[in-house]
Amino acid sequence: MIDIRPATPDDVPVILRFVHELAAFEREPDAVKATEPMLTAALFGPHPAAEAVIAESDGVAVGHAIFFHNFSTWEGKRGLYLEDLYVTPSARGRGIGRALLRHLARLAVERDCARFEWSVLDWNEGAIALYRALGARALDDWTIQRLDGDALRRLAVGR
Amino acid sequence: MIDIRPATPDDVPVILRFVHELAAFEREPDAVKATEPMLTAALFGPHPAAEAVIAESDGVAVGHAIFFHNFSTWEGKRGLYLEDLYVTPSARGRGIGRALLRHLARLAVERDCARFEWSVLDWNEGAIALYRALGARALDDWTIQRLDGDALRRLAVGR
Repeated sequence: MIDIRPATPDDVPVILRFVHELAAFEREPDAVKATEPMLTAALFGPHPAAEAVIAESDGVAVGHAIFFHNFSTWEGKRGLYLEDLYVTPSARGRGIGRALLRHLARLAVERDCARFEWSVLDWNEGAIALYRALGARALDDWTIQRLDGDALRRLAVGR
Repeated sequence: MIDIRPATPDDVPVILRFVHELAAFEREPDAVKATEPMLTAALFGPHPAAEAVIAESDGVAVGHAIFFHNFSTWEGKRGLYLEDLYVTPSARGRGIGRALLRHLARLAVERDCARFEWSVLDWNEGAIALYRALGARALDDWTIQRLDGDALRRLAVGR
């Protein structure tokens, strides 16, 4: 029996574990700088930066989704942006990823969001096939740009 | 003299004009559903969905940037996501886009954001050249996925 529920502060250790597992799957096992206190503050502090839901199978956490609201100037409305979608390997193939996506689509509609968006690595063919089956389209003509670390600081100080 | 300042509710008409101008430049002139009341609520309501800054030349608005905070599970921190960057054609070539980007980079650093991100259309070579010159890198191996309209509602109701 799969259940999807909002995360609580008690879930932070399993959320951080899933974040590490997803980073390893995405071939960036050393990319995670987040800690339990950082996730607790971001998800459950006075000004949350994101929200999380947990997928449970017979009471055991088997996956999660972490999301926040973005904003579209064309739509004039918020959207729902899915930052992390993860199902632990032993629980795959049972429709849990699809159930998490449906849960978030429902939240997006309830909250009057114009769009539900996320990003995918181009080699993740299994995920991409699921997204196509659910009716999502790829924004192939857009590319995300990122400034971070020293490049961000250099621009900030105007050098 | 270029000045960059936070937008106020009085700027909403010019912001909406810039949103329309940018949509036309992006070859989607009919894509804008936003109205002045929607932008007023999103930018200046009790729970803002986004923030805006205005670039002024001798007191006349010549461009804007609209942005919000995203969140990275790897970093465990918020990022700054730039949704719209626009400089009106008559004011281009004077470094106003770069000044807006520098302003936002400074905000990102002040707010302890791990990343400053945005998206660009692949044919917008002038913009891409500027982003490279500023040290931004393209996340070429990621593609944005979008569900909206009927496809979003279909997933939400589980059909």
